[in-house]
Amino acid sequence: MEVELKAMLDDLNVLEKSLSDSAPIHKLRSHVENLVALSKCNPQRRSKVKELSSEVVDSNPYSRLMALQRMGIVENYERIREFSVAIVGIGGVGSVAAEMLTRCGIGRLLLYDYDTVELANMNRLFFRPDQVGMTKTDAAVQTLAEINPDVVLESFTMNITTVQGFETFTSSLKNKSFCPTKEGSGVDLVLSCVDNYEARMAVNQACNELSQTWMESGVSEDAVSGHIQLLVPGETACFACAPPLVVASGIDERTLKREGVCAASLPTTMGVVAGLLVQNSLKFLLNFGEVSPYLGYNSLKDFFPTMQMRPNPQCSNAACLERQKEYMLAKPARDAAAKAKMEADAVVDDENEKDTTKASSSSDTLPEGLTRELPVADEYEKAIAIGSGEAEEEEEDDLEDLKKQLEALNAA
Amino acid sequence: MEVELKAMLDDLNVLEKSLSDSAPIHKLRSHVENLVALSKCNPQRRSKVKELSSEVVDSNPYSRLMALQRMGIVENYERIREFSVAIVGIGGVGSVAAEMLTRCGIGRLLLYDYDTVELANMNRLFFRPDQVGMTKTDAAVQTLAEINPDVVLESFTMNITTVQGFETFTSSLKNKSFCPTKEGSGVDLVLSCVDNYEARMAVNQACNELSQTWMESGVSEDAVSGHIQLLVPGETACFACAPPLVVASGIDERTLKREGVCAASLPTTMGVVAGLLVQNSLKFLLNFGEVSPYLGYNSLKDFFPTMQMRPNPQCSNAACLERQKEYMLAKPARDAAAKAKMEADAVVDDENEKDTTKASSSSDTLPEGLTRELPVADEYEKAIAIGSGEAEEEEEDDLEDLKKQLEALNAA
Repeated sequence: MEVELKAMLDDLNVLEKSLSDSAPIHKLRSHVENLVALSKCNPQRRSKVKELSSEVVDSNPYSRLMALQRMGIVENYERIREFSVAIVGIGGVGSVAAEMLTRCGIGRLLLYDYDTVELANMNRLFFRPDQVGMTKTDAAVQTLAEINPDVVLESFTMNITTVQGFETFTSSLKNKSFCPTKEGSGVDLVLSCVDNYEARMAVNQACNELSQTWMESGVSEDAVSGHIQLLVPGETACFACAPPLVVASGIDERTLKREGVCAASLPTTMGVVAGLLVQNSLKFLLNFGEVSPYLGYNSLKDFFPTMQMRPNPQCSNAACLERQKEYMLAKPARDAAAKAKMEADAVVDDENEKDTTKASSSSDTLPEGLTRELPVADEYEKAIAIGSGEAEEEEEDDLEDLKKQLEALNAA
Repeated sequence: MEVELKAMLDDLNVLEKSLSDSAPIHKLRSHVENLVALSKCNPQRRSKVKELSSEVVDSNPYSRLMALQRMGIVENYERIREFSVAIVGIGGVGSVAAEMLTRCGIGRLLLYDYDTVELANMNRLFFRPDQVGMTKTDAAVQTLAEINPDVVLESFTMNITTVQGFETFTSSLKNKSFCPTKEGSGVDLVLSCVDNYEARMAVNQACNELSQTWMESGVSEDAVSGHIQLLVPGETACFACAPPLVVASGIDERTLKREGVCAASLPTTMGVVAGLLVQNSLKFLLNFGEVSPYLGYNSLKDFFPTMQMRPNPQCSNAACLERQKEYMLAKPARDAAAKAKMEADAVVDDENEKDTTKASSSSDTLPEGLTRELPVADEYEKAIAIGSGEAEEEEEDDLEDLKKQLEALNAA
């Protein structure tokens, strides 16, 4: 549009010189100027910020996030700008997860999808009808960049289950240019928001190879239940150790996502799963609350099962077995660190002896005048934790154990 | 923009007649035509639909929702077009609730808010930076109409806690022009998504007066917990029967939402609460699953407490006491209806005797080849239900009971 308007002004200038009466040209020029003004009163975009401010003014997009520090929930919110999160699958869960992280001011987002936006996607949040026909990655970048220009967005329009796609995927995860001093891979967390078995196995393979912590999410085909799960290579079960449906019901998950079968979906279930997923991610990245190893959501009964899954020593994934070995070898160092931390905490407890009501962590206290809306979970029986218990017993479990847990879980 | 372009074409036509050489005019005219074309390739909007189709094609915005019928979750999804839902407070929870209901194809939405969009709202979903300065109702209508033109949107830019605002609020709830044959008030459900005590009390008053079922929602000032609650005048506690914080902690909730205090907020917590709220609304409206009377969300521990609250016979709200009396008087009729239903169900059970595995409701069965992702909640101990139990014992409870429950709940 700018190009056309500029060309018209040039043409008008030329025409004016050949005319005796320049009044009609003046009139035309004023129209063009009005059009220029109209084309500029386009979407107001906010400029990037240098530092997150906690100033309480309407114009500060971060005031309500920085307030998490003042409320004692997060120790250092601003660290969020250093983190890179990769989201695989920008559908009903992934797109909302991306929007949530963008609005939280995450440092960098890497987005992977090969699909295009369709009207049939409009029953879930995020995409708009005017984006129909765009790739999901392009449409997501368009929307997210407008919402928060501070976030570095990288999009990959490709299928990670192809040989070429998998290579691009792993090398993009390894790229450290955003934060060269970071330990491990180039990203802090991978979120799997895909809807099929192959893609989950591809994410699992890449994360096992890179020793990359990731979170898996899923929503059932009948749209009324879902789950999130934390996977730490070597420390927890990987997706190949125990893909829940395959192991427990004997049904191959690959047959569940079929071409031509139209799964139901709801913006509510997808929104809740995305919210739980990103909340767990924020707790993991910003170090507050308790990171859930597994959290289910059965919306028909508002039932939220939790469990822990340890790795399968007979896992078919070679990279998983390598990570398990490394994790075992690091046990003495881990125990020593835990002991040192416990002793340090004990010293702090002694110093805080005056506060006899509770040995509270910083997130358990609230500023004066505030009261929790909900009870602290410890005061009630905990939601049933399925699984054989504490991490310390880690030598005891085996495939049979895992199978039994999962059979019980799936016996619906 | 159209006006300017039209005027330019007229001026060019006039100018052309006064010139010997019309080549420059042709050139200018082609620029204008290009601009007209550019201005028209604006947002693609889909046209309204007459009936919800279940056809599985990319261009059908309802295919994934109508699939809920084929999956056996909802008996008649299309009924959603008959329902009117009022949302009070279009902030972090209300705006997302409105978007979810819009994408689900709700018949009519009534939106109430008096606030304007600020950059400080950008850490929650829904509003965009280019909407800063607009009223929240106008901005919401702009976004929602683009997402789904089938939804009838009515917006009320006003404060329901003023005398005039309260009157407009109640009369708008009574307006039956959308569905004249509907019983009761003009809306099927009111969702309270406000952030302060006065507004909750205003919604409570209106709903008690109109005998209007509503759902309350809230998120704590530290952004990490929230709740939803179903309120059926006369049948459950009203907001004045037992405003949780006031009764249990002795702290007046009015002091908690203070001018100048910047509450923390997160798109995750708000998104989860909105999702749980609208999921509960869909279950209530479309008659599937179990509608939760109260559901809490403690995100630090991923703990989801549930409870039931019965009305307080000493409630300070006169309209609540009237509804309680009506509910008691209708008990014989209710008991007779329940008995008749039980007997009818028993007949159905006899007829289905061949299926000995479970006396399942329609939503408990899945089409062949599908497996539930999550266990059925009944197979595990239920999440702790606080409260004195079954609805049948309704004569036994009193204020002391309620107080005790709430004290236990808030003893953090």
